Amino acid sequence: MNVRDVALVGGATTKFGVRASTWAELAQEIGVALFRSVPELRSEDVDSLFLGAAEPERFAFQSHVAPFAAEQMGLRPHRIIQRTELACASGQSAIRSAYAAIASGLSDVAVAVGVEKMNLPSMAEANTAMASVMDRAWDGPHGATAPPFFAMVAQRHQLEYGTTDDQLAAVSEKNHRFANSNPEAQFYEKTFSREKLARLPLVAPPLRLGDCSSMTDGAAAVVLVAADRARAYTDRPAWIRGTGQYSDFHNLANAGSLTDWVGLKHAAREAFGRAGIGPDDVDFAEIHDCFTISEIVEYEMFGWAEPGKGGPFASEGQGDIGGKLVVNPRGGLLGCGHPLGATGIAQAVEVYRQMSGAAPAARTVPDPEWGLVHNLSGSANVHSVMIYQRGGAA
Amino acid sequence: MNVRDVALVGGATTKFGVRASTWAELAQEIGVALFRSVPELRSEDVDSLFLGAAEPERFAFQSHVAPFAAEQMGLRPHRIIQRTELACASGQSAIRSAYAAIASGLSDVAVAVGVEKMNLPSMAEANTAMASVMDRAWDGPHGATAPPFFAMVAQRHQLEYGTTDDQLAAVSEKNHRFANSNPEAQFYEKTFSREKLARLPLVAPPLRLGDCSSMTDGAAAVVLVAADRARAYTDRPAWIRGTGQYSDFHNLANAGSLTDWVGLKHAAREAFGRAGIGPDDVDFAEIHDCFTISEIVEYEMFGWAEPGKGGPFASEGQGDIGGKLVVNPRGGLLGCGHPLGATGIAQAVEVYRQMSGAAPAARTVPDPEWGLVHNLSGSANVHSVMIYQRGGAA
Repeated sequence: MNVRDVALVGGATTKFGVRASTWAELAQEIGVALFRSVPELRSEDVDSLFLGAAEPERFAFQSHVAPFAAEQMGLRPHRIIQRTELACASGQSAIRSAYAAIASGLSDVAVAVGVEKMNLPSMAEANTAMASVMDRAWDGPHGATAPPFFAMVAQRHQLEYGTTDDQLAAVSEKNHRFANSNPEAQFYEKTFSREKLARLPLVAPPLRLGDCSSMTDGAAAVVLVAADRARAYTDRPAWIRGTGQYSDFHNLANAGSLTDWVGLKHAAREAFGRAGIGPDDVDFAEIHDCFTISEIVEYEMFGWAEPGKGGPFASEGQGDIGGKLVVNPRGGLLGCGHPLGATGIAQAVEVYRQMSGAAPAARTVPDPEWGLVHNLSGSANVHSVMIYQRGGAA
Repeated sequence: MNVRDVALVGGATTKFGVRASTWAELAQEIGVALFRSVPELRSEDVDSLFLGAAEPERFAFQSHVAPFAAEQMGLRPHRIIQRTELACASGQSAIRSAYAAIASGLSDVAVAVGVEKMNLPSMAEANTAMASVMDRAWDGPHGATAPPFFAMVAQRHQLEYGTTDDQLAAVSEKNHRFANSNPEAQFYEKTFSREKLARLPLVAPPLRLGDCSSMTDGAAAVVLVAADRARAYTDRPAWIRGTGQYSDFHNLANAGSLTDWVGLKHAAREAFGRAGIGPDDVDFAEIHDCFTISEIVEYEMFGWAEPGKGGPFASEGQGDIGGKLVVNPRGGLLGCGHPLGATGIAQAVEVYRQMSGAAPAARTVPDPEWGLVHNLSGSANVHSVMIYQRGGAA
């Protein structure tokens, strides 16, 4: 049997934000939304479920979460069921697992779903859970959680390249503006000028509140199918053409440069190589803007901006509509919020919407043939990349 | 490109038991053991790492565990890195993910590793973590943890079929005896006659201490490679020929029969179908004896014993050497202990040892062509099956 092409044929997300819903209720809600948005999908046709979830054990006091999600969504997977975890990249890992399962013939019709409930009655407990993403003996307990770590990246980038606070704010302004076209975004209808962003409180210098993605509850799901099934669900599939990952280190003491993310370059090279394209072919990208500085470094690592020139790339609008490529049209993690396991899935939903012509006008990417999705996890020590190509209309 | 055959070419386990080691130290230890047991394996050739771990967030206060394990093991995966979680079946899920990745061409040389640290200073906390495997709103908090649930299964099986406590003990006696040939087993060199087992304290009637697998620390790892790489590592590979899973329900209120495990039958049918064999072709099986009653029900569900006749099958030694097939020659979860994510990997290590002629005489399966591995998870609501075939000598 030949390795099979894999098509993304639809998806949905819940409202992202501070939700009153439990983890189980979010899983129910995304089940309903998925079946509504892919009307041809029948429960009994879904042979496999891949759940991306980062910390339900801590956030929702539930483990064995994949069958829990299946039951809440009205699914009874009869080929593969599993949860994947890779912290902030858990969602993309679920999609990659579904891709491999379908390509190899183990699955024909799979759902990849991400669910995360991060807002707890005790936010101290939630923050402690977040600290456990970092090395629990050396890093997390000593304060090296995400905001301080990425603040160090920003400080170093500013020192090495003269990147400015205003250039950081340009990323935040763009992604929040895009989120204004996305009712599912946590910060829908919130506007943030660069001037307003500059007055928000500091979280970890130079990062202010508007430079940081938030603690978010939400869920997202996509349907992935073998090539010969795609037309049953859509006449505008998006094809997975390349995937790459790289795991560089874990303990911060073993990190190399703060601003040269070697792992991202490796993962990108692998994904581009498999897709047979280069960085300049990408029409739009959903990349991991957990902090504004992340998106700036990523511009450089992907080869869209020259080394050290991610700041000007941002302030010149090169990642905006009309620029070199459109970056984070959905609104990014900054505008949409970042429910860890759901983020990578929601990015894929945006790929489908852009490629099928369903994205609202305010964020429509012109003629999008190639889309890229990127997630980092932990202290940018692991990078995950997937590349999609638009399929033709029937 | 064709879908590729996938070979199991070696593996290792740490000592299972109540270990002084931390989670990180167990990961280091299995890294050393793996490279020693597969001497041709070079770190840089390992392109992907699949980690099976059930609850490191609760047991070890560490999330983002896949890169953590990679670093401890001296690996820097450059194709795929992820952790899979499916409670007690997390290890097999890692192997299945590696299989799909290799078969589809995403990986050439992958390590699947399982690490679990369950013995905490506060065993009350560990037990609470175990309760979160069940539905956290409806089941776990009301006492439906593993021992009471499987006790209900045993009570029902005794009521329906007249299964006796002594038949349960026969399973425990066999698996502890096999564990006497396995220095890595938690209960190595512990002997348990049926009479002695009958005097152990009751945990949940009719299950006594010897009917229950234990809280165990341990790690295990295997190397899986594409067909064309197999001969570089061994002249006696074991080939993965079939895989199947089924997710039936989560909340106990949605369970059907306690003694007719429909999900296992579905998963087995899928795996047998892919392998092109039937139950009678299996020479040995590593199946999920988390409790003695589990192994008895599994005899029936796999079709080795008639419905309701799992008890006599056990007491007649049909799962022993010289019986219908050899069940749990490694010593099973009862004899080896059950470090959740490591169990499924350790079962695969036993498959390799049996098929490569490396198992000690006391548990050698005669001429083992076909081996089967089974894990259940949660309240036996999810079942996972893999089938291996022995490769010829070079």
